Amino acid sequence: MSLLADLTSTLFDRRYLRVRREKRNGRSVEDLCNDLLTSRGEVSGVALASTVLDAYAALDREGRLKFFRFLATELDLDTAALGDAAAAYAASHDPGDYKRLMALAEPKRQELARRMNQVPGATRQLVQMRCDLMDELSAAPELARLDMDFRHLFKSWFNRGFLVLRPINWESPALILEKIIAYEAVHAIGSWDDLRRRLQPSDRRCFAFFHPAMPDEPLIFVEVALTKGVPGSIQKLLSEDRGAHIDASEADTAVFYSISNCQKGLAGISFGNSLIKQVAEDLGRDLPGLKTFVTLSPIPTLMKWIRAEGREAEAATPEGLRRLAALYLSEAKRPNGQPMDPVARFHLGNGAILHEVHAGADTSGNGMAQSGGAMVNYLYDLSKVARNHQAFAEGEKVAASGQIAALVKQAQSQAPKAA
Amino acid sequence: MSLLADLTSTLFDRRYLRVRREKRNGRSVEDLCNDLLTSRGEVSGVALASTVLDAYAALDREGRLKFFRFLATELDLDTAALGDAAAAYAASHDPGDYKRLMALAEPKRQELARRMNQVPGATRQLVQMRCDLMDELSAAPELARLDMDFRHLFKSWFNRGFLVLRPINWESPALILEKIIAYEAVHAIGSWDDLRRRLQPSDRRCFAFFHPAMPDEPLIFVEVALTKGVPGSIQKLLSEDRGAHIDASEADTAVFYSISNCQKGLAGISFGNSLIKQVAEDLGRDLPGLKTFVTLSPIPTLMKWIRAEGREAEAATPEGLRRLAALYLSEAKRPNGQPMDPVARFHLGNGAILHEVHAGADTSGNGMAQSGGAMVNYLYDLSKVARNHQAFAEGEKVAASGQIAALVKQAQSQAPKAA
Amino acid sequence: MSLLADLTSTLFDRRYLRVRREKRNGRSVEDLCNDLLTSRGEVSGVALASTVLDAYAALDREGRLKFFRFLATELDLDTAALGDAAAAYAASHDPGDYKRLMALAEPKRQELARRMNQVPGATRQLVQMRCDLMDELSAAPELARLDMDFRHLFKSWFNRGFLVLRPINWESPALILEKIIAYEAVHAIGSWDDLRRRLQPSDRRCFAFFHPAMPDEPLIFVEVALTKGVPGSIQKLLSEDRGAHIDASEADTAVFYSISNCQKGLAGISFGNSLIKQVAEDLGRDLPGLKTFVTLSPIPTLMKWIRAEGREAEAATPEGLRRLAALYLSEAKRPNGQPMDPVARFHLGNGAILHEVHAGADTSGNGMAQSGGAMVNYLYDLSKVARNHQAFAEGEKVAASGQIAALVKQAQSQAPKAA
Amino acid sequence: MSLLADLTSTLFDRRYLRVRREKRNGRSVEDLCNDLLTSRGEVSGVALASTVLDAYAALDREGRLKFFRFLATELDLDTAALGDAAAAYAASHDPGDYKRLMALAEPKRQELARRMNQVPGATRQLVQMRCDLMDELSAAPELARLDMDFRHLFKSWFNRGFLVLRPINWESPALILEKIIAYEAVHAIGSWDDLRRRLQPSDRRCFAFFHPAMPDEPLIFVEVALTKGVPGSIQKLLSEDRGAHIDASEADTAVFYSISNCQKGLAGISFGNSLIKQVAEDLGRDLPGLKTFVTLSPIPTLMKWIRAEGREAEAATPEGLRRLAALYLSEAKRPNGQPMDPVARFHLGNGAILHEVHAGADTSGNGMAQSGGAMVNYLYDLSKVARNHQAFAEGEKVAASGQIAALVKQAQSQAPKAA
Repeated sequence: MSLLADLTSTLFDRRYLRVRREKRNGRSVEDLCNDLLTSRGEVSGVALASTVLDAYAALDREGRLKFFRFLATELDLDTAALGDAAAAYAASHDPGDYKRLMALAEPKRQELARRMNQVPGATRQLVQMRCDLMDELSAAPELARLDMDFRHLFKSWFNRGFLVLRPINWESPALILEKIIAYEAVHAIGSWDDLRRRLQPSDRRCFAFFHPAMPDEPLIFVEVALTKGVPGSIQKLLSEDRGAHIDASEADTAVFYSISNCQKGLAGISFGNSLIKQVAEDLGRDLPGLKTFVTLSPIPTLMKWIRAEGREAEAATPEGLRRLAALYLSEAKRPNGQPMDPVARFHLGNGAILHEVHAGADTSGNGMAQSGGAMVNYLYDLSKVARNHQAFAEGEKVAASGQIAALVKQAQSQAPKAA
Repeated sequence: MSLLADLTSTLFDRRYLRVRREKRNGRSVEDLCNDLLTSRGEVSGVALASTVLDAYAALDREGRLKFFRFLATELDLDTAALGDAAAAYAASHDPGDYKRLMALAEPKRQELARRMNQVPGATRQLVQMRCDLMDELSAAPELARLDMDFRHLFKSWFNRGFLVLRPINWESPALILEKIIAYEAVHAIGSWDDLRRRLQPSDRRCFAFFHPAMPDEPLIFVEVALTKGVPGSIQKLLSEDRGAHIDASEADTAVFYSISNCQKGLAGISFGNSLIKQVAEDLGRDLPGLKTFVTLSPIPTLMKWIRAEGREAEAATPEGLRRLAALYLSEAKRPNGQPMDPVARFHLGNGAILHEVHAGADTSGNGMAQSGGAMVNYLYDLSKVARNHQAFAEGEKVAASGQIAALVKQAQSQAPKAA
Repeated sequence: MSLLADLTSTLFDRRYLRVRREKRNGRSVEDLCNDLLTSRGEVSGVALASTVLDAYAALDREGRLKFFRFLATELDLDTAALGDAAAAYAASHDPGDYKRLMALAEPKRQELARRMNQVPGATRQLVQMRCDLMDELSAAPELARLDMDFRHLFKSWFNRGFLVLRPINWESPALILEKIIAYEAVHAIGSWDDLRRRLQPSDRRCFAFFHPAMPDEPLIFVEVALTKGVPGSIQKLLSEDRGAHIDASEADTAVFYSISNCQKGLAGISFGNSLIKQVAEDLGRDLPGLKTFVTLSPIPTLMKWIRAEGREAEAATPEGLRRLAALYLSEAKRPNGQPMDPVARFHLGNGAILHEVHAGADTSGNGMAQSGGAMVNYLYDLSKVARNHQAFAEGEKVAASGQIAALVKQAQSQAPKAA
Repeated sequence: MSLLADLTSTLFDRRYLRVRREKRNGRSVEDLCNDLLTSRGEVSGVALASTVLDAYAALDREGRLKFFRFLATELDLDTAALGDAAAAYAASHDPGDYKRLMALAEPKRQELARRMNQVPGATRQLVQMRCDLMDELSAAPELARLDMDFRHLFKSWFNRGFLVLRPINWESPALILEKIIAYEAVHAIGSWDDLRRRLQPSDRRCFAFFHPAMPDEPLIFVEVALTKGVPGSIQKLLSEDRGAHIDASEADTAVFYSISNCQKGLAGISFGNSLIKQVAEDLGRDLPGLKTFVTLSPIPTLMKWIRAEGREAEAATPEGLRRLAALYLSEAKRPNGQPMDPVARFHLGNGAILHEVHAGADTSGNGMAQSGGAMVNYLYDLSKVARNHQAFAEGEKVAASGQIAALVKQAQSQAPKAA
């Protein structure tokens, strides 16, 4: 059971600080990249790649922009050769032709990234490089293709099979925990004491995905409350003086009340779907008393929609607000048929269903402004997520519980008549 | 220092055995693959991918061949569309066109492999899948393109930056050690006692590269002896009763006397180059007394060349054999200019130089048959490997020590006159 | 969960090899001990204690005997002062008098042992020292008191609360596993392959107690087979080709078929009692299917007793042998009322009961010679062990199952009439 | 290197929460203790001991006092029997008599404590029990003998050889770090940010001793600053904006600026002496640039002495204050000849010497009140600590550097004439 643990020599994570560098000899970062792409670069490997990464790290914003343009332009596809090679392979189906075609079908910058990644610790620097790139995209849209290459590589490198799910608790290293504080995007963590209240009690859990090449950087994490029954108020759930904590074995419900992505540079590489399901699987195995797996989620655009519909008056009562929330989440769609609400898109797309809506559930300033205080539980029934997703993908009606369906009906019957 | 270690929860490596499977419902492995490539496959993810892997594992040889043909043919490139997309992007340089082009520039089987790899533990199964494939290549050469795709993916996944260097010693798990016994390809390890003699003494070291997704599978390992002076006999080096072992801190030389690749399914993904250099770096740091890093290497094709040259008589004396070995390694070339000897190609290509040759150095049956008992030390001087490689790549003279150069001169002066 | 693991810096176990030594300056080991007992010894601590341990390690047998006599005599109790101090404290009950009394109530050699034990790694050397001492006891019975002091110290140091239970499996370090092979005392392990058959299959387990100060030395270990039903043959249980292994979750019975103490120097410090109960607790928690916890134990002195009783003829049939075994284990007693059979004394004293006896259960040469091939299952019912022990300690009838009781009755009815 | 780490199964530290308890059946804690001391208690072991510990934990202060009196009185020595046994052994020197004597020479409460300690996790509870006891000692001095027994046991259990030295850094578990904040006794740590400033910079170190049976409880820790030259101001050393941190390899001096004991229940078990020396050894090995190991220590009673001497005027200038500090630390003695200053007693007793004194070194309110802002460096030269200690123990002059000696001379020449 400790093989993977054993794998991780003490030396590993620190040593890269002391990696041998190749002398720069006045070469620009672009020259260094060209050298790294030669056969010599393949052999000198880590030393030259380290020099490239150092050179990149020393660039200012202008230098980075120039560098990105170099990658996007100089190391772009040779489309003419690619077209020819495609034709040649189409004609021959010969392995040699396939090899040539595949070499041309990938811009050299992808091989460059792989060679930079030879340096222990480089993965994190490449994720940062994409971060830097994303800051330039709006002003330099021609760099979008470079961003697509990063995304393509990261999808392969950050494949689910390479990720490790780790509990985050009060025994976790401070170095990790301070990142949890920093990255929490849904319900801010105000202090270390606040963090402890989310991690240490017997009825709280937190899990994160990590990648072995970035062991001190959580990629995404989810915070979980173990409860009796499905909760309808985030403030009550997180209250400082919520009284005695139940023992985990007494809980019947696991509530995913906050999910946060940590790495801007990994935008577009989706982990959340796997994370919720994996955590639900694991918790269900360790705590057989758990029968219900739900979120307690915000409805960020509810009030905007209510105003657009001119139904503010109805939203003034708790029941009215609940009806409208149910209606909005079930029926309000974007032109492409997807739910209008972004959080709904995520969970329904993952195979969850609408389970319950609550008024007065998030009385924070932000919660009141966005949704009039309403929140929603999405239910994850692991035996049905694949089926639910299928139905959702095929454009069927949003799957919802009986309560929700009833609320929707009521809301529809009370809809303002068109003038 | 324990973050990566912490990363590795006990649960991780075992749990995948219990991953939820999607019901097969009579689908063939090919159908399952097609499903996995749909958006539904993306969401049901691990469960469906597990079912695919199970289905593959249940195939017999014929089934596997059919499956490989399916991958090679049905999930091949659409060359016509690819040609069009290349033309469109060439014309527009538009991001949308780039995206379409990149999607077409990769056969779907690569995405399929990435989706199969979502399952914890799948990486090892995919490496095995390529193994299975390699057994079919000679009879079904049209599968070569599939093999190229595996190789392309594995190059990305097994990037040096993702590998972890680990010492292998007598405290390593038996599960790992039995693989060291099985995989040793140069000087066979006959028993656990023999293994202990290679690992436990104070003047022996062994290191392996591992990938975090296959923590109990060494990828490549190197065995090292710490000595005073450069040794010239493998039998003496490995002798059971070689007397008192020197303390590591007394050694001035590290001898890489055996390097073995472990994973047939990773053929063509070169690790040896990095391994030797990394181990030399690390040993040099931990044991400042070490000044010389050499191999003690076989010369597999020496006798064959000597016979071809008709110089067997000369090879009968130790000095004659040494002269011929020096000459052969320095001067005998393949039509493409590369050294004839495969081991020489590897080490000289990595930037090592010819340091010394020894007669009577490998008196085993195999050693006598291949090289008349001669062996060679390649010297790794880390401050010069990049330069040496460069010279080698540019086709310059093979770099060699003064002793070797002198031997070569003598050998040339004694060359048989052409009749 | 990793705090204790984190505790264990890489440095710890190796570093003591490099502990600073105080110069010996020609002092004898006895002089060094006297110095270590002064206040200076308290401060120079590890350095002086290391010198003492080195000096001891360099002694030959004669030197050790002299040293043990020094400990037994020179560092013995001052009985006169002790008597006076006891009287003074009896009169005053004053804390100062108590302090003086307690200081005199312990021979100085105990404090000496504690000071030697300051050196990391010393605990193992002190256990070895007692080993050396035990070799002298028969020839030098006056050293028995020194042995008692070791035992007293070790009871405190190797207290159950300080021991760590660890699974031993095929992922354990070879360094540990070779000790399992060496220490197995009941059913010898012939080779590494044999060891693997005891550790790797899904229906096998092994656990050992360790002490944190001797992390590479198992103290005692137990081998367990997971079965359906209670087995009645050790050869079948250990057979090389016993067919498909059941999955652990299918088993209803855990069979403790071998328990071995590892450290001669810890003789008299009983671990077996705790080990069986702890392993039964843990297995029961991890594998809820397990309902029965039994041993499969030898009956070392059965044939001797049968011969003494003159009932060899009866023992010739399986049924006869079973009856006699049941009778022997239940009724044959030593003068002090304890069971005659040593294994029975151990398990019955721990609160187990006689569950079943089997003929033809150990057909090895040793098994046939000792017990005519009979073996016995002792049953551990954790909810009853305390009560069973109580009854046993109070001299009640040996607790046994109905089958055993019936066999005893039959055996008694067939007892040869006194002539 | 991972054997000790491997030792520490995940299960270990958590599992004791779920230890089986023996039913209490209305027994008082005193009855339970008596039962635990019988042979039955030896076998039922962990279960009964757990019940005892639970029963103790449920006592209120009055109940605890009653319990302590029970231990002190009912489980006290039988002095009459002890006297007889001493006489018998003195006469016979027979092993049997020795055994009886040793059994009587220890009060039963020590065996009771060892049996309670069978429960995993009990060690910490027993340390707490002594804490509780210490609160009663002033009001119930007759319990002092019980306290002596705890101390005796803990000296054996917390022997230096059983302790593990661990770095404390920003990767340590929050659970440990919050204890560092709580236990820091010299220069308070105000917040997690403050803590990070003491742990994370490249020129800061912290080390603690732990006991394997209490893995989440530091016993004592020392904070270290790596500097160029010996510092003379604690505020500068700890300043938030002290500028760029030097790299550890550049430092020539290690400054032990704070040592804190963590466990009140281990009062009188000295760890500080070993800790400083061990940390100095380890740092010296890892950072060969370190040549000087000093403290930066308070002089808690300096101003009190100055006032008693009537030399306040002199203390008003930095030079005057330094002279007086040097004089005080070198010459001011208690009636027993030991230095008057408690910190000086500790470090000089450990073999350190007076190295330098600084005025304006601690300008905090407390620092000004205690010592007028003066601080002192004690120098640890590991090659001389044993010799220095010896001289100190033999009552020789306090060992001091030339600077200190010169200051003392000046101070003496300026001493006020007796009227």
